Formats: sequence, structure tokens, C-alpha cells
Amino acid sequence: MPSEFELIRRYFVREGRATGIGDDCALLGAPTGLALAVTTDMLAEGTHFLRGTDPRRLGHKSLAVNLSDLAAMGADPRWFLLAIALPEADEAWLAAFADGMFALADAHRIELVGGDTTRGPRTITITAIGTLPPGYALRRDAAVAGEDLWLSGATGEAALGLAHLRGAARLPAADAGQCVRRLEAPEPRVPLGRKLRGIAAAAIDVSDGLLADIGHIAEQSKAGAEVDYEALPQAAALAAYPDRRLADECLLGGGDDYELAFTAPAAKRGEVEAAGRAAGVAVTRIGRIVAGAPEVRVLKGGKPLAAARHGFDHFR
Amino acid sequence: MPSEFELIRRYFVREGRATGIGDDCALLGAPTGLALAVTTDMLAEGTHFLRGTDPRRLGHKSLAVNLSDLAAMGADPRWFLLAIALPEADEAWLAAFADGMFALADAHRIELVGGDTTRGPRTITITAIGTLPPGYALRRDAAVAGEDLWLSGATGEAALGLAHLRGAARLPAADAGQCVRRLEAPEPRVPLGRKLRGIAAAAIDVSDGLLADIGHIAEQSKAGAEVDYEALPQAAALAAYPDRRLADECLLGGGDDYELAFTAPAAKRGEVEAAGRAAGVAVTRIGRIVAGAPEVRVLKGGKPLAAARHGFDHFR
Repeated sequence: MPSEFELIRRYFVREGRATGIGDDCALLGAPTGLALAVTTDMLAEGTHFLRGTDPRRLGHKSLAVNLSDLAAMGADPRWFLLAIALPEADEAWLAAFADGMFALADAHRIELVGGDTTRGPRTITITAIGTLPPGYALRRDAAVAGEDLWLSGATGEAALGLAHLRGAARLPAADAGQCVRRLEAPEPRVPLGRKLRGIAAAAIDVSDGLLADIGHIAEQSKAGAEVDYEALPQAAALAAYPDRRLADECLLGGGDDYELAFTAPAAKRGEVEAAGRAAGVAVTRIGRIVAGAPEVRVLKGGKPLAAARHGFDHFR
Repeated sequence: MPSEFELIRRYFVREGRATGIGDDCALLGAPTGLALAVTTDMLAEGTHFLRGTDPRRLGHKSLAVNLSDLAAMGADPRWFLLAIALPEADEAWLAAFADGMFALADAHRIELVGGDTTRGPRTITITAIGTLPPGYALRRDAAVAGEDLWLSGATGEAALGLAHLRGAARLPAADAGQCVRRLEAPEPRVPLGRKLRGIAAAAIDVSDGLLADIGHIAEQSKAGAEVDYEALPQAAALAAYPDRRLADECLLGGGDDYELAFTAPAAKRGEVEAAGRAAGVAVTRIGRIVAGAPEVRVLKGGKPLAAARHGFDHFR
């Protein structure tokens, strides 16, 4: 079996890139005049991904969830570190994982600068570092009553894909493929996050579920939020799904969407729409920030809807 | 069971500190004119620590191994992120883990700025960020033939402590306590690393085993290294241990020591000794860098010694 050091060299050190892997620390020249945005996400088998998940997609997703956090702050991706525990040194698995991870890294110009590999239950931790002009971060606590509430893309497909994989939903083949792809290979909204700097007020990436994540904005901004059910974009698979209760749970509380939910003043609607066009992703006005208690209400036909499931919490 | 968000708040958010936990990313003001040193280490139960390890010591060690990497570059600790998977939300365990981690963090003035908690097999990933003046990093590839080879403290106690816990060694109670403490609560050599900036050439922290880690310096510096067996400092427990073969294996190849091995020109011996005094840690000249193939030879009575075990590799 190849040694830890050989594995690191073989799959994670790329010729012609900046040095970093191979010393005790990576050395980064701090960009003058920029703030740093730093995030870490851990993915554990059985909790965040099913045993047998395609390693190429897992490599993609492990980085994507971190890029999504950078996107939610409006940061430019710069560097990342990978810590990975594997039950055995499976080279085919590692090669596919690295392929999926580096394809996404190259697309977003983020560079692997350090890491750690070890034996253990399959667990992946990526830490990503981005930069942005000081004062331009999109924060969760910046929403103000009267602002529009926006959503990129659409939510729910990932959760419906997971329900399908678990046998809790039955999807036609084409819908299943699309939903599982959204679950396993989400596209982080990095270009949109960057374009929203100076336009959006508060932002968050939708990972726990739409209502739960809007709830985080509400709590931290000390304001309420209203979501218009009829305004929510519905992907084809959700719109067509016969069990409306499950479809609504996925839409409102599913999680793993990696869309951006954000707020902006009404005067900036044109700028938000232009940012969406420039980033190549649909943006939809789905509600508003209101004065009052930090609660999220869903309105359907103007009346509050009792939502069944508000988010995913690993310890609940 | 308390939710993930409550757990994060309860144990890892400290009042009156810089914000960071609670948004998608931590925001750090990049220190003008300084380079960043970044490192990540993952500790998995069963591989890096035994089930039942005191959580206070585990919190200490999880951060200590990262601080040791910063020390080996000569960096000043600044910020860290914690990703932790736990099989269940055991509050007494978390409180003790946080206590141990924060006590060490406070001692070295490094601040927790972000993290992730999830359910899964007990696994801890910490990513630490330090700063240092550009060009002053202590790198593995900077050793030059003719330089002295130095070691802080002494190696082998941690490995002997592990052998004791596993029943492969029998130690008197006082030695067992000392060796297990070295294993479970290592002291990162941060003050020494900082003092060695501008004095030492190459440096590494001894985590894989003394010879293996000196081997990393040799390989990356494209030079040989000679270690004088008689010059190696021996802790009391090792010196007294009757099985000399096991004692030597621990001394030369044990790992988990978190001492610094480093090189410096002979002209700087006085400065190295002053750095050790200022940092409060013994520094010992244990050999030299030589021209030739990147190999490490141990000389005993002037003759090469065949060492039984050269390091610890998680996948070998």
C-alpha cells in the first residue's frame, strides 16, 4: 500500500502551482488592502453523503459547499486546504475524488495549498479562504425592514433527490437524474455573490433549508421575514411531483440547495436582476423583510402557511 | 437533545471576542505587510487518539498539533477554525473539550473564528492561520550542508506513553503519568519558533518521528543529515527503560513529540542557545547537515546505526 506521503504527492500536488503542500504550513502572500473570508465544512459519510456516493461528485461537493459559503459573503475564492480520513488508501477512489475537486477548483480559480490525509471513517474537511474589499461583505445581520427578499435558482431538488435515493420518493428517471445531480454536485453561486457586492444587503447560502436559512438572516438582523409561497420558483421535478406535502417540505425545508437567499433595497431591483443575468443564474423576488420579531412566515394566498419542516440539524 | 446551533453557541461562541462564528464565513482583517501561514490537521478516534481519551486533553491536543505547525514555520498564531464530528451531542464531553482547547488558545493568543459541528464518528479538524514577516518563514527546504542540526526538548516520551496505554510497555506510575501527558497534552514550541526567525535555516515539527521528520528536511533541502546518537537528549523515562530496543524506537521513530528539529549555521550557535533560553526550552545540537544523498544516518560511537523504525505513516 502506498504511504501517506506518496498518496499526498500523487493526487494532491500539482506541478507548476504555488508551493504549500510539503511544508508544515502553506505560505500565502496576504493580499494588501483586502479582507479575508474563511470557512470550514466537514462532510461525514452517513450524515452528509451516502456510502457508495460517486467519488468524483463527492470531490466536487466537498469543495462546492465551501465555495458556497464564500459566495454568500461575496468573496473571491483564493485558497483551500483539504483534510481527509479514509478507511483505506483506495487509489481509484482518490483519483476520482481529486478529479472532481480540481475540476471545480479550476472553474473558480481556487488553489489547494495544504492538507492532511489519515486513516479513519470517511470524513472530509475543507477550509476555504477568499478575499474581498473591506466593508463589502454580505453578512447575515445586515437585512433591514422594507427590503426585498431574493432567491437564486430554485430550492428543493436536492432534498427530493435524497428522498428518492432513500426510497421515500419515486421519481421518473429524468427527474431522478436531475435531482440527484443537484444533491451530489451543487453549483456554488460564486459569480452571483461577487456581483451582489455593493448591491445586496444580507445574504446566506441555503444549506439547512430555505426557511431555516432565511430564519438565520431574520435572527441576526433582528427583523421578520415574509415569503410568498406563490412567488417561489419550482423546479420541474417538484412542480410535477404528486405528493404535494413532500414537495413543499423539500421546497421550504429540504436543505443542500446551495442557492443564495439575500436581501436588497427595492431601489436596487434592476441592479439585482442585472447581477443575476451577468452571473447566468435566475434571481427571483420571493418576499420581504418586515419589522418585528425575528420569525419567518410563509404566505399562501395572503394567509400564513404552517410549514412542516424548517431545516436540517445534525443533532436534532 | 440541543440543536447543532445551540451547541455551537453554548460551547464555542465566547462573548466579547471578534465576531465570526454565526455567519457563512469569518471575516478577518488581513494584517498589512505580513504573510500568512496556514495549516490543517485532522484527528480521528482510533488513529490519533484512543476511545475514552480525556476530552480536556483532546481539546488541548487538537489545537496543539496545529500550533506546532505554525511554530515550525516561525509564525505568530492568529486565528483558527474547528470542524468536529461527534457520535452524539454529549455536553459534558463538549464542555471539557472546549475548556482544554480554549486554555491553550488563550495561552498562545489564537482566536476561534469559525467552525462546523456535525454528527459522525468522532473526528476533529482544526485549521490554524498565523502571520509572519515575508521572507522569514522557517521552511523544510532551506537546510545547507555544514549547518548544525538542533532539537528542542527531547523525543520519545509520547511514543513510550502510547506503548504503555496499549500494554506494550510497562512504566512506573510517575513515568507513565509524564509520558501519557506528553502524548495527550503536548506543548507546541510556539515561542521558540518565533525566536528562531532570522536565526534558524530549516525547521520542522517532530510529529512523524525524529528520523522521519529530519528525513523530510533532507529530502526537501536535497542534502544529507547525520544524527549523533550520544548527543540526543533522553528524558528520564526513556533513559531508565530496561528494553533499550523499544526505548530507541521511541526516541528515533516514535512520533507525536511536537518538538522542533531545525538547522542553523555554526556561527549562530550562541543565538540559537539564547533563543532557547528566551523561549524557556532546552535546545541541543544533535548532528549536522552534510552534502550528498538526502538520507539520514544515525551515528553511534561514530558508526552508522540501523534504526528499526523511521516514522509513523497512517496508510503503511
